[in-house]
Amino acid sequence: MPPSPRQMHLGVFVLGTGNHIAGWRYPGAAQSFEDLSVIQEIGRIAERGKFDLIFLGDNLASEPGMHPSFAARFEPLTMLAALAVTTTHVGLGATASTTYAEPYNVARMFASLDHLSGGRAAWNAVTSSGGKAAENFGRIHPEHDARYEVAEEFVDVVRGLWDCWDDGAVVRNHETGQYIDPAKVKPLNHAGKFFKVKGPLPTSRTPQGQPIILQAGSSEPGLNLAARTADVVFAVVQDMAEAQAGYRSLKERMPRFGRQGAEIAVLPGMMPVIGRTEREARDKLNLLQSFVNPANARSMLASRMGMDVSGFPLDELVPKDFPLPDTSHGFAKAMLAKAWREGMTWRDMFNLAGAARGHWVVCGTPVQIADTLQEWFDNHACDGFNVLPPYFPGGFDDFVDQVLPILQERGLFRADYTGRTLREHLGLPRPRSRLFQ
Amino acid sequence: MPPSPRQMHLGVFVLGTGNHIAGWRYPGAAQSFEDLSVIQEIGRIAERGKFDLIFLGDNLASEPGMHPSFAARFEPLTMLAALAVTTTHVGLGATASTTYAEPYNVARMFASLDHLSGGRAAWNAVTSSGGKAAENFGRIHPEHDARYEVAEEFVDVVRGLWDCWDDGAVVRNHETGQYIDPAKVKPLNHAGKFFKVKGPLPTSRTPQGQPIILQAGSSEPGLNLAARTADVVFAVVQDMAEAQAGYRSLKERMPRFGRQGAEIAVLPGMMPVIGRTEREARDKLNLLQSFVNPANARSMLASRMGMDVSGFPLDELVPKDFPLPDTSHGFAKAMLAKAWREGMTWRDMFNLAGAARGHWVVCGTPVQIADTLQEWFDNHACDGFNVLPPYFPGGFDDFVDQVLPILQERGLFRADYTGRTLREHLGLPRPRSRLFQ
Repeated sequence: MPPSPRQMHLGVFVLGTGNHIAGWRYPGAAQSFEDLSVIQEIGRIAERGKFDLIFLGDNLASEPGMHPSFAARFEPLTMLAALAVTTTHVGLGATASTTYAEPYNVARMFASLDHLSGGRAAWNAVTSSGGKAAENFGRIHPEHDARYEVAEEFVDVVRGLWDCWDDGAVVRNHETGQYIDPAKVKPLNHAGKFFKVKGPLPTSRTPQGQPIILQAGSSEPGLNLAARTADVVFAVVQDMAEAQAGYRSLKERMPRFGRQGAEIAVLPGMMPVIGRTEREARDKLNLLQSFVNPANARSMLASRMGMDVSGFPLDELVPKDFPLPDTSHGFAKAMLAKAWREGMTWRDMFNLAGAARGHWVVCGTPVQIADTLQEWFDNHACDGFNVLPPYFPGGFDDFVDQVLPILQERGLFRADYTGRTLREHLGLPRPRSRLFQ
Repeated sequence: MPPSPRQMHLGVFVLGTGNHIAGWRYPGAAQSFEDLSVIQEIGRIAERGKFDLIFLGDNLASEPGMHPSFAARFEPLTMLAALAVTTTHVGLGATASTTYAEPYNVARMFASLDHLSGGRAAWNAVTSSGGKAAENFGRIHPEHDARYEVAEEFVDVVRGLWDCWDDGAVVRNHETGQYIDPAKVKPLNHAGKFFKVKGPLPTSRTPQGQPIILQAGSSEPGLNLAARTADVVFAVVQDMAEAQAGYRSLKERMPRFGRQGAEIAVLPGMMPVIGRTEREARDKLNLLQSFVNPANARSMLASRMGMDVSGFPLDELVPKDFPLPDTSHGFAKAMLAKAWREGMTWRDMFNLAGAARGHWVVCGTPVQIADTLQEWFDNHACDGFNVLPPYFPGGFDDFVDQVLPILQERGLFRADYTGRTLREHLGLPRPRSRLFQ
């Protein structure tokens, strides 16, 4: 019997009006990220496609001039709790900040979501790179490395709180009247540099033991945090060689933290634009691009770059020595690398930001797209993909109905779910509590 | 035509294992507060009974030795978001702390819940009276009046954030590509003594305009905060005269804040124990009391009183000069008043804490209970009740099937919903944003 083939993991990144900045203008596209029925439809498609997870970003400030789904949206945890009720298998990943929230509150909400969903919760731990959030919390935005120092401790506290209850602590003994076995509930008693948290949570050990940890950081501190604590990494890359290098860099640092490379699934963001012919796909992308409001694209690019770039001459090449500020996203690095590699102008950069907010766009027929994804996967550039449909639901339907069957036929993706929890989809064991070992 | 009669408002206070501390031991009772199907069943009963709202408390620390539903429960916002999906009319009220959360995060979550539920969200703003929460947030627990000073500003910031979007701000103009009208979104720019919050939220104006504000404080600062900002007050009272005095005291201070008494619905907590005969009801309560684990009841009483009372001789009368510490709940005042009025011993106090955590217990036939509720209502001791079934679902079924029809027959409660939002159930108009008037 041949060895069981390595299979991809797939997530879908959800912005209700589409990942393309003007996706809502595409004929038939969903019009709002504040519409539960849109999210529920996406949940149904994700489960029809046997996806590992639904992935929600977040922003702690409204940016009405940028992407419609950044301006008006639901809070991610409440939205996923609602979605948990109308889905049964797909993982539910939400973003919560390690800079502008309390570890006790974050730990509770994800523990609650894990119970409500029967073991499908995932926390995307971010340090909130934009400085605008600070103004909503009466704070000075900490600089990059300081945010990661806090994040390291924050993640440990959250995971420690998830460990305060052992399995089987709720005994409900009708004879004696004992409801909880106190020997199976311990405080955490964390006292660190940034946080002092006693615990336990008022929530018992969750179906997954520990909800899944997602991360998207690409800086050195970001990669180290991921290597030590992440289960899934959402990568921003535009090029296979670059993806391979990033993949190796992350996996090679894992043994330093006592972990194996297989314990993290690296999923680059990828916007599929699908046509029956290459021409049709190209026309579709051009139509989407024609819908872009230039001011929105400029705001998006400015946010990704961490600085106002509206003064640069549109038809000049992006200079090779362009300095990145501390407030830039990981996106900026990948976009600049692409610009230098391909000789892009600032106009090209605006278009790239407008299309997929700096993510990789793959435009072609279903077979061409499947070939590209397989090439990246077979060449260890990734462990799967975070799919960013340009608009919903059609753009996601197209991927699930046209590209996915090819991947399944090639044995690259599951034909059906074999487990119920996200941890099971990812092939990760359910951990025992570290406080009770 | 006679004037339209004044009608009661009804809430149901949910602890999944029952409001009685040993409710889970009652035959047929739900066994867990970490079971979505239990909550969904309660939601169905509440809507069958045309209740105004479901009311969830919270605790920011686990207290395994006290009430089972205080020890192991879901986080309230995620739980109500899940419940929003399987209910259509009943209001969804959750507790969130003004001491251990950020106003921006609280405002977002309730705005999100209001959208997800189509206008049924309510925020129970509490200052977190127990000091145990402080240990989970690395803080010194602020003393009572300082907590209320923070709460006053916190509530204003949250309501201000809800006002940052005007109705009609999301225009989605397919011709021009404009998604949001920037003239209809404003920052709050709050800079106060405790908080500095710019705004706006990344969530448009909600179905209710402003989610409903619930409060339960009974101290002078608590009553003032309620008189100024609350729509619904959850009162803790044991006696009609006491309820009348509290009711008057709250309503009479409202004009000071430019409001009318009718703008707040005062709902005392009330545990119904229902039998076909008075004897049967009494037996049911005795059976429930026989299930009480004395250690749990002592912990509950200690928490309510804000001090350890386990050393007091069980068969001695509660002394008239018993001093209440700053850390006591509003419960303590009502329980002590009852103890002095009725000559209760410390054993009686433990029983009272075990039964309904210090709330009023009404034991009798459906007609007796309906008579008592009507007496309180007609005599302006309240505007309705917050019903605390001793166990679920049976204890709630009994109220809805046996007591409610009597109230409906007497014209004291609605026969069906006439609106869709909680604000409509309460007879309150949808406010315009104060930032756009």
